[in-house]
Amino acid sequence: MSILIKDVEIVGVRGKKSVYIEEGKIVEVGNPSVEADRVIRGDFILSPAFYNTHTHAAMTLLRGYGDDMDLQSWLTEKIWPREAKLKPEDVYWGTRLAALEMIRSGVVGFADMYFYVKEVARAVVDQGVRALISEGFIDLFDEEKRENEIKKVEKGLKALEDFPSERVRPSLGPHAVYTVSREGFEYIREKADETGYPIHIHLLETRVELEDFLKEHGVSPVKYLQEVGILRKGTIAAHSVHLTDDEIDVYSKLGVYPSHCPTSNMKLSVKGIMPAQRMVEKGVRVTLGTDGAASNNSLNMLQEMKFAALLAKGLSSPTNLPAEVVFRMATEWGAEALGFRAGKVEEGYDADLLLFKRRHVSFTPGFNSISDIVYSAGPSSLDTVICLGEVLMEEGVIPSEEEVIERTRVVSYDLIER
Amino acid sequence: MSILIKDVEIVGVRGKKSVYIEEGKIVEVGNPSVEADRVIRGDFILSPAFYNTHTHAAMTLLRGYGDDMDLQSWLTEKIWPREAKLKPEDVYWGTRLAALEMIRSGVVGFADMYFYVKEVARAVVDQGVRALISEGFIDLFDEEKRENEIKKVEKGLKALEDFPSERVRPSLGPHAVYTVSREGFEYIREKADETGYPIHIHLLETRVELEDFLKEHGVSPVKYLQEVGILRKGTIAAHSVHLTDDEIDVYSKLGVYPSHCPTSNMKLSVKGIMPAQRMVEKGVRVTLGTDGAASNNSLNMLQEMKFAALLAKGLSSPTNLPAEVVFRMATEWGAEALGFRAGKVEEGYDADLLLFKRRHVSFTPGFNSISDIVYSAGPSSLDTVICLGEVLMEEGVIPSEEEVIERTRVVSYDLIER
Repeated sequence: MSILIKDVEIVGVRGKKSVYIEEGKIVEVGNPSVEADRVIRGDFILSPAFYNTHTHAAMTLLRGYGDDMDLQSWLTEKIWPREAKLKPEDVYWGTRLAALEMIRSGVVGFADMYFYVKEVARAVVDQGVRALISEGFIDLFDEEKRENEIKKVEKGLKALEDFPSERVRPSLGPHAVYTVSREGFEYIREKADETGYPIHIHLLETRVELEDFLKEHGVSPVKYLQEVGILRKGTIAAHSVHLTDDEIDVYSKLGVYPSHCPTSNMKLSVKGIMPAQRMVEKGVRVTLGTDGAASNNSLNMLQEMKFAALLAKGLSSPTNLPAEVVFRMATEWGAEALGFRAGKVEEGYDADLLLFKRRHVSFTPGFNSISDIVYSAGPSSLDTVICLGEVLMEEGVIPSEEEVIERTRVVSYDLIER
Repeated sequence: MSILIKDVEIVGVRGKKSVYIEEGKIVEVGNPSVEADRVIRGDFILSPAFYNTHTHAAMTLLRGYGDDMDLQSWLTEKIWPREAKLKPEDVYWGTRLAALEMIRSGVVGFADMYFYVKEVARAVVDQGVRALISEGFIDLFDEEKRENEIKKVEKGLKALEDFPSERVRPSLGPHAVYTVSREGFEYIREKADETGYPIHIHLLETRVELEDFLKEHGVSPVKYLQEVGILRKGTIAAHSVHLTDDEIDVYSKLGVYPSHCPTSNMKLSVKGIMPAQRMVEKGVRVTLGTDGAASNNSLNMLQEMKFAALLAKGLSSPTNLPAEVVFRMATEWGAEALGFRAGKVEEGYDADLLLFKRRHVSFTPGFNSISDIVYSAGPSSLDTVICLGEVLMEEGVIPSEEEVIERTRVVSYDLIER
């Protein structure tokens, strides 16, 4: 299948060009004189697609189920009791809804940490996107629980490795320093050494997490995780709110990807703002995550970009995190963190592309298309979404949408009444 | 013209009801057995519409024209030179685009402060919404300039008073304590006493404004404006970021409406967060504003609601500004600040109503419709917008949209090349 996108304005570039796609890759950008199976033409702005580097996709099932609560009550009274009753089929439909919602804001790939990873993979492929998938590992410092978690991880990895699609990449998901033992982390590190799979972890989300760990261990979680081999090249460290300047240097030196989740951080009141501007200044490739829909409550990368920029500016300087940088966080750096050669409209890159409607209020007057995408556009300004050369949404329509909404609704209500 | 909206779920209420509208008012909520000129039926969530209590609508013309700059350079290099070249026709088209964009996020009324108020009024009425309109008054402490400003205000008020529509309400717009002299404020106060028109002012937006005023006058801007009679029942005090607890009490006692503009505040880095939770606790009716599109860069009330809630929580507590309160800020309290009997789905209230698509990803699963509107919904989840019983948008379509976008684009590019 080949696609020719004719005469579009490429985001951040003056003038019009055409883009030729073959077998999921961008083959030519310029003025290709080729025939294609399919020609797309319209008054569009062409953008690389977005990548969501931290989510628990199936938590769409619990959207709006508990809001405006303190974190501990929210987890113990609302989220954990329901998660304990999850069935594989729930995770499949919740993940499909999440993927669908992400497509609507231009996301074609995400890093997921949840349960029943085979169902996550099925949903990802059925919805046409791609993902870095991990089974969450939580041993709660208990040896028996650890053995069970290891079995679950091994089974999950096997399922992902056998999954018949290049859209699925396995990864390792040790939950956090307050839920995983040293032995647990050592197992994860060995597994990562053995397989080369990246690690995806929650780190320094709340101030309490930092304070408790320091009190108990006398070292910071960053130093501890560096020592135990979890912080390494390619590790996705979700949240990373409460870092010192020296720890930012560690991220930079090692090549850790922080996943900035501004909406979730503010909604759950982590009592700090990720030092994203400082990180970027020190060469860290900051990426963006929505976290799960239970704490966001949407999976809207366009909103996440705007909010990331605003938070970096508000109490500090309006020149922090300019639109161009936030845009790279969502595109190029996000793709890199997930291990995809994507996030740019350039030859040889994966054809993960978006077509925004230029004749939309968000792009009027239209002085700066990057600014308009970051600060003004929303899902309603997006016309077409392409992942690996496959059209997932066209004229705002995703064919499977009605079925997915209907099924997820049934599954969610069943889950909270179980 | 009468409308019967059949069998909808009213936001925050269980079960389905019907709503009968006649001559712009809600006449019956329940199970009316009437004939209507028009029947609307669908799988909808019915909500009161939203009110934007602080904007400079025509600044859509400068959306994305200057971003990520420090406030002073932004104003002196980008905004003011362009505003000096504005023509009445520009303001008309810029305001129409703004009204159209606001309709797309459920806003049917707004408080505007800008130039050429007759054109603002024309645009408001032509786009079908309603507004509290003021000519911005800026004398820069210069007597001659003051005389001219007074003439402009008088002329503007006359135009608004003569405007043949109930959708237009005049108000008085002294810009701010750092741009208006004591004599200027006295003129405004006298005019307000004489006419009963409400006052709309910028107040305590940046920390610099507070510090400079304290240094020069030895009293805070709040105390000064209270003494000079500008802070009074019904005054809209836009921004109101840097208030003391005692000053919050003043707002509460007098009945001042702060207009919280979280996005603009963060984008321009006002170096503080409005104490919205504290204000609500003390009985202040906090309302929401988008500010102009040059500093937001959108006019999306759904985003503003979510952001207001997040900012109140982030550094303090997740229980601050729950969804129900933010929803009141955008509906009931916003309507009150603009002087409309609206913002509730109740008999006798103006028929300013929204129909959200229940079968939309934002409302799936749909455990709590208020939470879903505040935290999850966006313009794409809105189907129908009604203002004073008139349908402005239906199935996501606003008939005038293409023309308005086209004209605004032409006018904007002309403005920056003048």
